[in-house]
Amino acid sequence: MKAIALLACGGTIDKDYNALSGELDFAQSYLPELLKQARHQLNLRLETLMLKDSLDMTQTDRECILNACLKAPERLIVITHGTDTLTQTAEYLEQHLVDQISLQKTIVLTGAMRPFRLAESDASFNLGAALMAVQTTRPGVYVCMNAQLFKAHQVKKNRQLGVFEAH
Amino acid sequence: MKAIALLACGGTIDKDYNALSGELDFAQSYLPELLKQARHQLNLRLETLMLKDSLDMTQTDRECILNACLKAPERLIVITHGTDTLTQTAEYLEQHLVDQISLQKTIVLTGAMRPFRLAESDASFNLGAALMAVQTTRPGVYVCMNAQLFKAHQVKKNRQLGVFEAH
Amino acid sequence: MKAIALLACGGTIDKDYNALSGELDFAQSYLPELLKQARHQLNLRLETLMLKDSLDMTQTDRECILNACLKAPERLIVITHGTDTLTQTAEYLEQHLVDQISLQKTIVLTGAMRPFRLAESDASFNLGAALMAVQTTRPGVYVCMNAQLFKAHQVKKNRQLGVFEAH
Amino acid sequence: MKAIALLACGGTIDKDYNALSGELDFAQSYLPELLKQARHQLNLRLETLMLKDSLDMTQTDRECILNACLKAPERLIVITHGTDTLTQTAEYLEQHLVDQISLQKTIVLTGAMRPFRLAESDASFNLGAALMAVQTTRPGVYVCMNAQLFKAHQVKKNRQLGVFEAH
Repeated sequence: MKAIALLACGGTIDKDYNALSGELDFAQSYLPELLKQARHQLNLRLETLMLKDSLDMTQTDRECILNACLKAPERLIVITHGTDTLTQTAEYLEQHLVDQISLQKTIVLTGAMRPFRLAESDASFNLGAALMAVQTTRPGVYVCMNAQLFKAHQVKKNRQLGVFEAH
Repeated sequence: MKAIALLACGGTIDKDYNALSGELDFAQSYLPELLKQARHQLNLRLETLMLKDSLDMTQTDRECILNACLKAPERLIVITHGTDTLTQTAEYLEQHLVDQISLQKTIVLTGAMRPFRLAESDASFNLGAALMAVQTTRPGVYVCMNAQLFKAHQVKKNRQLGVFEAH
Repeated sequence: MKAIALLACGGTIDKDYNALSGELDFAQSYLPELLKQARHQLNLRLETLMLKDSLDMTQTDRECILNACLKAPERLIVITHGTDTLTQTAEYLEQHLVDQISLQKTIVLTGAMRPFRLAESDASFNLGAALMAVQTTRPGVYVCMNAQLFKAHQVKKNRQLGVFEAH
Repeated sequence: MKAIALLACGGTIDKDYNALSGELDFAQSYLPELLKQARHQLNLRLETLMLKDSLDMTQTDRECILNACLKAPERLIVITHGTDTLTQTAEYLEQHLVDQISLQKTIVLTGAMRPFRLAESDASFNLGAALMAVQTTRPGVYVCMNAQLFKAHQVKKNRQLGVFEAH
């Protein structure tokens, strides 16, 4: 079975309610709990790169994600990321990974519109879809949201509807 | 976007606790609720064929599923099914769909080890994976469980561990 | 069976995650859903007075709550309220209800530290405790939080710990 | 603050779905998890006496519960118990605790119609109500279900409706 790297970068999927502040923030990644519920049998390595709201992501953060993709021994990589700048990171990765040995990598970015910890979340569905997509599609950089798989430069988030669309 | 048929046949994924009897049984399909949470943007048609524990499935039930696959106008079909005889139905469908026009159909069977309604379920994850697999893999009959995609005749359920394995 | 009025005023107990804004806000009261799950057999009337963060409550809002208590035909009243100014409203009600015919009313204020809709909430537990307290304690104004019942002027919220304490 | 003993005896409240057998059974008590979510600030001692379906309870089991009540240093006791024979155990305790020093104890039995682990459960609501009732009512043996408090010999379970009623 092919090895898969799951790189956690934060975003809504990993936010939780902070009862003291009354705000949503990051305490830890809940991907281990999600993966346990999923009963997956993959050869999977989870690495938390950062836990950030994607509106707060900097160029340095994107370089960090790129480096993690380049250094990962796995050819199959799924990245969890905030949805607000998810397509921006996807395009950045595509631009910097093309024409390189890393072209042979399949990278799928996903996230959630509702936190895993908040019940009735799309987190498990989206990660299930992304982990399947990374195994079944060709090398390249993709966005997996709303049960659809988009090429990195062919998708945008429709903020009015809260869905990802072909661009 | 390609049309997808989602055929519900029951199984653990759709069971719920009956507070009066104290047993798990079927009241209705919860796939509409699951799909709403998933925020999918697919061209999807949901059809409930039956709501049965897969241990109770008869030859007539399998013929009913086969006919639904043959008659479905969609070429992409996902079937939710109880896990105990899921591989048996998958093999039956593969045998009866080969060498036919229906060979051009992609059929993915999935289910859950824990009911969607019972919290901490693998239902959303599995359906996310199955709905992605049906869009990204070649025509044929498959089983999608534990984040893995198996060809119909190459998988069995390990009842001691509660996972599906290559056969 | 004695009639009970349940007056919803908002607060964390009724907040939900807004997937479009990424913020917690009010869409509707979830008390009908909570009460259905609770399987209560009370003679209960639910009235939504407002859906407000208690930090946004004005003097006018407190007068509205007071009037609702005075006009309610029921002698037993439970109020759901944001926790940040819950004790302030409780004291206000106590001051304005004393020495009146309304003295014969039992009023219990409660809330939640984590929204009902966000899973792992204290909402159901707290409302269960408050609805029991209102039936079993003497007339007066009380705060029911953390499984404890406090007289209105004898309790404060410890914001560092997120719990209510005797004052 | 008065000390409270919480005696777990099993019943639906503590059942969970066993993914391997497909049945509901007991793996452990989930009361610690429920109590953590509840954010209670009580001086509470939790003791698991047994984890049994109440239809399987024997005379020996009831003697065990009686002895635990007699030996408990706390005067306030809440018992979680299966609903099918909950009123029977309540009556047994009442008969054997009357005219004794233990008469000064307040004992409240509760349970759930839907397991805590299965989502949309009445478990948290019921335990919140029971823990409040034990603090606010007079010594005696009670049943707390459906947001109501009944004296031990004045309640029966209506199996058709799945609710407890005055008898």
